[in-house]
Amino acid sequence: MAEYKAPLREMHFLLHEVFAAEKLWARLPALAETVDRETADAILEEMAKLAANTLDPINRSGDEEGCHWNDGVVTTPKGFPEAYATFCEGGWGALLGNPEYGGMGMPKMLGAQVEEMINSANISFALYPVLTAGACLAIDAHGSGELKQRYLPKMYEGTWAGAMDLTEPHAGTDLGMIRTRAEPGEDGSYRITGSKIFITGGDQDLSENIIHLVLAKLPDAPAGPKGISLFLVPKVLVNEDGSLGERNAVHCGSIEHKMGIKASATCAMNFDGATGWLVGEVNKGLAAMFTMMNYERLGVGIQGLGASERSYQNARAYARERIQSRSPAGPQATDKASDPIVVHPDVRRMLLTQKALIGGGRALSTYVAQWLDIAKFGEGEGEEKRKAEALVALLTPVAKAFFTDKGLECTVLGQQVFGGHGYIREWGQEQLVRDVRITQIYEGTNGIQALDLVGRKTVANGGAFFELFAADVQAFIDGEIDREDMAEFVQPLAAELQRLRGTTENILAAAKDDPHAPGAASVEYLHLFGYVAYAYMWARAAAVSLRKTAEDSFYSAQVKTARFFFARLLPQARALAASVEAGSATLMDIEEELL
Amino acid sequence: MAEYKAPLREMHFLLHEVFAAEKLWARLPALAETVDRETADAILEEMAKLAANTLDPINRSGDEEGCHWNDGVVTTPKGFPEAYATFCEGGWGALLGNPEYGGMGMPKMLGAQVEEMINSANISFALYPVLTAGACLAIDAHGSGELKQRYLPKMYEGTWAGAMDLTEPHAGTDLGMIRTRAEPGEDGSYRITGSKIFITGGDQDLSENIIHLVLAKLPDAPAGPKGISLFLVPKVLVNEDGSLGERNAVHCGSIEHKMGIKASATCAMNFDGATGWLVGEVNKGLAAMFTMMNYERLGVGIQGLGASERSYQNARAYARERIQSRSPAGPQATDKASDPIVVHPDVRRMLLTQKALIGGGRALSTYVAQWLDIAKFGEGEGEEKRKAEALVALLTPVAKAFFTDKGLECTVLGQQVFGGHGYIREWGQEQLVRDVRITQIYEGTNGIQALDLVGRKTVANGGAFFELFAADVQAFIDGEIDREDMAEFVQPLAAELQRLRGTTENILAAAKDDPHAPGAASVEYLHLFGYVAYAYMWARAAAVSLRKTAEDSFYSAQVKTARFFFARLLPQARALAASVEAGSATLMDIEEELL
Repeated sequence: MAEYKAPLREMHFLLHEVFAAEKLWARLPALAETVDRETADAILEEMAKLAANTLDPINRSGDEEGCHWNDGVVTTPKGFPEAYATFCEGGWGALLGNPEYGGMGMPKMLGAQVEEMINSANISFALYPVLTAGACLAIDAHGSGELKQRYLPKMYEGTWAGAMDLTEPHAGTDLGMIRTRAEPGEDGSYRITGSKIFITGGDQDLSENIIHLVLAKLPDAPAGPKGISLFLVPKVLVNEDGSLGERNAVHCGSIEHKMGIKASATCAMNFDGATGWLVGEVNKGLAAMFTMMNYERLGVGIQGLGASERSYQNARAYARERIQSRSPAGPQATDKASDPIVVHPDVRRMLLTQKALIGGGRALSTYVAQWLDIAKFGEGEGEEKRKAEALVALLTPVAKAFFTDKGLECTVLGQQVFGGHGYIREWGQEQLVRDVRITQIYEGTNGIQALDLVGRKTVANGGAFFELFAADVQAFIDGEIDREDMAEFVQPLAAELQRLRGTTENILAAAKDDPHAPGAASVEYLHLFGYVAYAYMWARAAAVSLRKTAEDSFYSAQVKTARFFFARLLPQARALAASVEAGSATLMDIEEELL
Repeated sequence: MAEYKAPLREMHFLLHEVFAAEKLWARLPALAETVDRETADAILEEMAKLAANTLDPINRSGDEEGCHWNDGVVTTPKGFPEAYATFCEGGWGALLGNPEYGGMGMPKMLGAQVEEMINSANISFALYPVLTAGACLAIDAHGSGELKQRYLPKMYEGTWAGAMDLTEPHAGTDLGMIRTRAEPGEDGSYRITGSKIFITGGDQDLSENIIHLVLAKLPDAPAGPKGISLFLVPKVLVNEDGSLGERNAVHCGSIEHKMGIKASATCAMNFDGATGWLVGEVNKGLAAMFTMMNYERLGVGIQGLGASERSYQNARAYARERIQSRSPAGPQATDKASDPIVVHPDVRRMLLTQKALIGGGRALSTYVAQWLDIAKFGEGEGEEKRKAEALVALLTPVAKAFFTDKGLECTVLGQQVFGGHGYIREWGQEQLVRDVRITQIYEGTNGIQALDLVGRKTVANGGAFFELFAADVQAFIDGEIDREDMAEFVQPLAAELQRLRGTTENILAAAKDDPHAPGAASVEYLHLFGYVAYAYMWARAAAVSLRKTAEDSFYSAQVKTARFFFARLLPQARALAASVEAGSATLMDIEEELL
């Protein structure tokens, strides 16, 4: 297995050349003092080292060993506690945190790239700090000043970790059905009772304390999703002075045996009258969870990118080293018995597909992160901020689902390059397939993401969010339309944008009479959207790179990868649009018992 | 996990209604006495029971326990030796065997369906008899009368198993590079020395003896693939009287730790001057292996179908039981808190995609098996037999690669229906994904299959084999063209056949000047071919079913699934054709070091 080497050149290219992050940072007051190019590059450099030297080396051993549960206590694999300590000492848990409580207040544009590296090195490890960061976001957004003061500094430090306790055995997608109860106590706290499953990091041996954010219902709560409240339930109760007190009545009943991410403890949690505190308003728990969802969901998408990049690096190295058969054009490595397999067009197809999908995804994650930063750090209530919020809402489900669906495709391709050696554990490629598979499922399955995109984010606003995105693409097209060298990208991009618009309009029209129209279109529409968004990203990369091909071969590689994407992968858009056009009839006509 | 229930109705439909197998059997003398509809149905019925009652129950436990290696001896999981004994007692190892040596001489059309059931129940188990059957085919086709007499009866019984020893660490796809040596002894036998890897069933505790077919080179052999010979090397030497004698110098050095098929022992084998016998002619070992490849490769394709069917059955049952959210059209199960998830269009899309791909694949495997039977059992050297051989050659790589690529797609969809529950081991869905993944890799990776299809099976004969297939499809179209009720299938089928022909002709033209053209087109072309072939199969199923929809809802389900396939899946063909049209430029233009 090749050593992981963070793609810093690609990251710098996107941040500084394609998206000119520094300009954005300079004009947003909250960021102007916090980050500049030098700081950003130094942070990326540091994470590149941590990922390669600390997190990557325990990835395979963590998979082999897995987590263990013994009498309510979870043990993570060898090396995980030490790596977690190193991670926390580096201040990584505070990167995006609120500076009022000890966070560094860095932009998501930078955070997204940092996350990619952590996930490339070790998805299982990444989940512990990712869940903590998610819990911090929810506490910061909805918790009382007292809760924030008490919990956030320790959580940014990593001394205390976070966990999100949503799912119950009978309530996954449909959280309205949860049964966990919260009874008000006399001191303003609550007694939480119930069982949760699939709780990532619900217990572990990494941190002194675990702060659970738990969805539960008050005794008089209305039925369904509008009767759910959010509670903060620490594993160990915290004394007035901030020191740790008694153990709370929350325990890990078991851990799951899973296809992958075996070093991440997936816990069944029991709350037996555990003490908790309300976060946000009564019965507004789901809304409180959803305010942080866009960050989390982009983060899961980035897990898909991280695994893809790792698989690609391994496959590329193997394709250059593995000697087997001759090139169809005749022997290339004439000093050897056979040529390296990278001479074969189909091996190149596999590598270039990975490269093009990763590059498109990394660019789109940077683009979405840019709008997240404008939405978060932009001042006042101006038009740009509203536009940013709308674009984040629209693009987040695309990023989550498309990056992770393509993550499976990329890791399967990276495994395939290895032939039989890809199927055995030794080379690590099969682990990446197993690990990445969960990203299509958790944090809202990709089917749910697609429904969100088509329903809430498109049909519900009559396509207004879509038009914001289309206008952004169109502005780029208008800006490049006179460049002859960009015609090969701009023209098909314009055609595909038109196709996406047509499909969007057809869904909006169909949804008026047919309640099944959005769901019937959803997954293919999301993929169509993803391909067009990647085309936009690759056209933007080409627009920068075409001017610099003489400077550095990096830029000609960008242009050639963009060409590959447009010629070989973008044709998928026409098939997806045709599938959407078929409507809901062929799905709904067949009787359930004949399926 | 739902209990496995063999899809006998679908199998009967294909055998008896779509392909009228009995008519074929009646006119082929070798089959007329051997098999009729009643016999065939009885055999299917028996295997349905064996699969459900004996093989399926040890599938998950086999995965959990895996095989173990201890000091050269491999132990299979609990229950495997007993199941193997039951399998052998049922005579299943002899099903397709040569009657001269104790085989039953059944047609592959029947055998393909039997294989599907074994694989649905337990892919790991299936591999042991599958490898034995493969070894028997090679011995039967190329071995001397003495070898056949000595080995085949015991192998058909299953008392002795078979293994195929081809791959070496540095020689996988490129078998020309193997280093295993064979030195002629004085008694007509050979001393075999070398190391092999990835040997399925190279050792196990199921059978008294294991008969290895080993590729090796004689001391004076020419370099490359033309210097390879095939040897029979028993684990235990066989005395003149057929009893077992001394242990031969062949040993299992270790077993692989793999992503899946954990109950199948994948062995590294060491030959230390082991005694072996030549099978076929000196230096014609690869050719001897390849004569049985079409059977084997179709068999691997069927593994993909088997896993898909199993995953589909589980997902269908879960989708009907799992209560979560409401239908977009309003509550359906008004007595419950939520509706079963099968009401959602996207869940139906996942189930119907599986159903359509499995049905198309099962039909195509039956179709290919029909031509295999005509090629094997047809008399003389007539035109039909030559046509059958050509069609088998053409369609086998399609079946192997397309069934297994779609096998991954189907098992991933079946897992996705379960949400988070699909990712944990409990429900069995994740095992099917892990198990089926190997089928895209072994027996020639799917990339190699695609090269075979485009290169050897199409370009090398100027498209002559393709025209045979196209003529068969065209004959069907011509026969149905006047049926108004078939227009919805016949017209798009004709259009897609035309698209496939155009693409084929473009590749033939491009291959004249561009050595990379076939490889650049290969995988997408194979998938395009697969979709068109499935369209042909679904049109044939619809042609029968449309006349019988009043009889039985089974037929309307066939018609509705065919409609789904044409409307929602077949559009893939246009994207694939467009990707092929891009040619080799975007693949080959980028410098290796910039990948």
